[in-house]
Amino acid sequence: MKRSPASAPGRPPAPVPTLRWVGGVGGAVEMIDQTLLPAKLQVITVRDERALRSAIRRLAVRGAPAIGVAAAYGIVLAARSSRASSQGAFRRAVQAASKRIAASRPTAVNLFWALERMEARLGALLDGTRSFDRDALIAALLEEARSIHREDEELCRAIGRHGAALLENGWNVLTHCNAGALATGGSGTALAVVYAAREAGLEVGVFADETRPLLQGARLTSWELGRAGVHVTLICDSAAASVIGSGRVHCVIVGADRIAANGDVANKIGTYGVAVLAREHGVPFYV
Amino acid sequence: MKRSPASAPGRPPAPVPTLRWVGGVGGAVEMIDQTLLPAKLQVITVRDERALRSAIRRLAVRGAPAIGVAAAYGIVLAARSSRASSQGAFRRAVQAASKRIAASRPTAVNLFWALERMEARLGALLDGTRSFDRDALIAALLEEARSIHREDEELCRAIGRHGAALLENGWNVLTHCNAGALATGGSGTALAVVYAAREAGLEVGVFADETRPLLQGARLTSWELGRAGVHVTLICDSAAASVIGSGRVHCVIVGADRIAANGDVANKIGTYGVAVLAREHGVPFYV
Repeated sequence: MKRSPASAPGRPPAPVPTLRWVGGVGGAVEMIDQTLLPAKLQVITVRDERALRSAIRRLAVRGAPAIGVAAAYGIVLAARSSRASSQGAFRRAVQAASKRIAASRPTAVNLFWALERMEARLGALLDGTRSFDRDALIAALLEEARSIHREDEELCRAIGRHGAALLENGWNVLTHCNAGALATGGSGTALAVVYAAREAGLEVGVFADETRPLLQGARLTSWELGRAGVHVTLICDSAAASVIGSGRVHCVIVGADRIAANGDVANKIGTYGVAVLAREHGVPFYV
Repeated sequence: MKRSPASAPGRPPAPVPTLRWVGGVGGAVEMIDQTLLPAKLQVITVRDERALRSAIRRLAVRGAPAIGVAAAYGIVLAARSSRASSQGAFRRAVQAASKRIAASRPTAVNLFWALERMEARLGALLDGTRSFDRDALIAALLEEARSIHREDEELCRAIGRHGAALLENGWNVLTHCNAGALATGGSGTALAVVYAAREAGLEVGVFADETRPLLQGARLTSWELGRAGVHVTLICDSAAASVIGSGRVHCVIVGADRIAANGDVANKIGTYGVAVLAREHGVPFYV
């Protein structure tokens, strides 16, 4: 059955965005404190760079794409609080903030990428001019951060669209860790496929590995899928073998910290084991 | 290097027995309360059948062989507290206790086996006689329970002896759940192999899966191996894939809840996944 449009009753609830910029250049980042999930849904307001670094460090925001978006907004927060009264001082302040934010999660590649993009944007704004319009620069940086966020949303939608075409009605998807709305600026990577399939009218269930040691599957994936009305079954990681072996899993979809040019994938501990089990049982494995 | 005999300094500490009968027919079962490990080593004294059933039910004692031994002693405790003044009443009291103890852990096959053996022993004692010597019967039941315990110790030693012959110096063994001294009346099944190898002078290390959901590997296997001076590395279950894949595991040894005549094995959730991973990487897998 094809689902009806957005306003119709019965439309499945959309996944909860994990972070957003509220207000104009004087605004702030609102984000779900993921360390409190699933017991408590608490949104924290992050108004300065120090609070943003702390949020990244203590995993209040996690997931490579979400961290990238948060870092871009972090540059806006840092630029806004800088007292620089010259081009050079402003640029140095942003670069120093960028270094500090990069150190808050040294393994997150999207973080470095987003910071470099923000610095490059600032460089382009400053190149060839000697004037210094602080407010205009901050507004332009916020616009760049918003672009990074919008592009990530669009990437999630595209992943969902392409992935959903691989699923069939009534399928069960097994996933590991959290590659959902909580991990990105949009509807997720692996879970975007599930959300998109449901939008397309397919009934899709999910087996979520609890994902030791930090339990992202138990705390985050189960929570966001359940909240969005997706049927989810939480299993301990070691049970994935039996569940796949029993024929109840039609495909495995996981996210990736990074994919190398040769196709090698780096992802959460346990992903490799699930891949071996999927191959053993002839179950498609998508990254 | 061949290790020196028992009294010599430097001999590795023996694994801790998880339960024992102390005293004569008026005695009691002393057992480690495994629910408190590894934070606290507390020995509880079990003096009646009700306390014994509670210990089995709440997993203070667990592991199929250890439960079997505990159940046999439980029959002694029940018989001792019976007020039966005739053969028939005594037999019925023991049979009723046996049913109650069997219900305390309905999935434990050794439990049923030990109870049947105790009932059979009582049957043999009573058959062909009309006399009723309560004290002699209780003493004979205690002797039978002690035999079950001794036989289990000998089985553990035999498993250790045969298994140790498969190991080489410097090997790392990966194990799942707890099939050690804490699970049996002796030195364990899977871990008996490690203990025996060490007795034979081999250096053997162990990777212990934490074994979700109840963490027998993290709480029990790591504790008993560490206490016995065996080098043990605790890993989350999903990390077994990478550790095996990295070539650091020379063989996998696990226990079994039960082995069918055709070789099929029933064991803790996750065992199947480890078996698939071992085969994928050409690592021997022993049950």
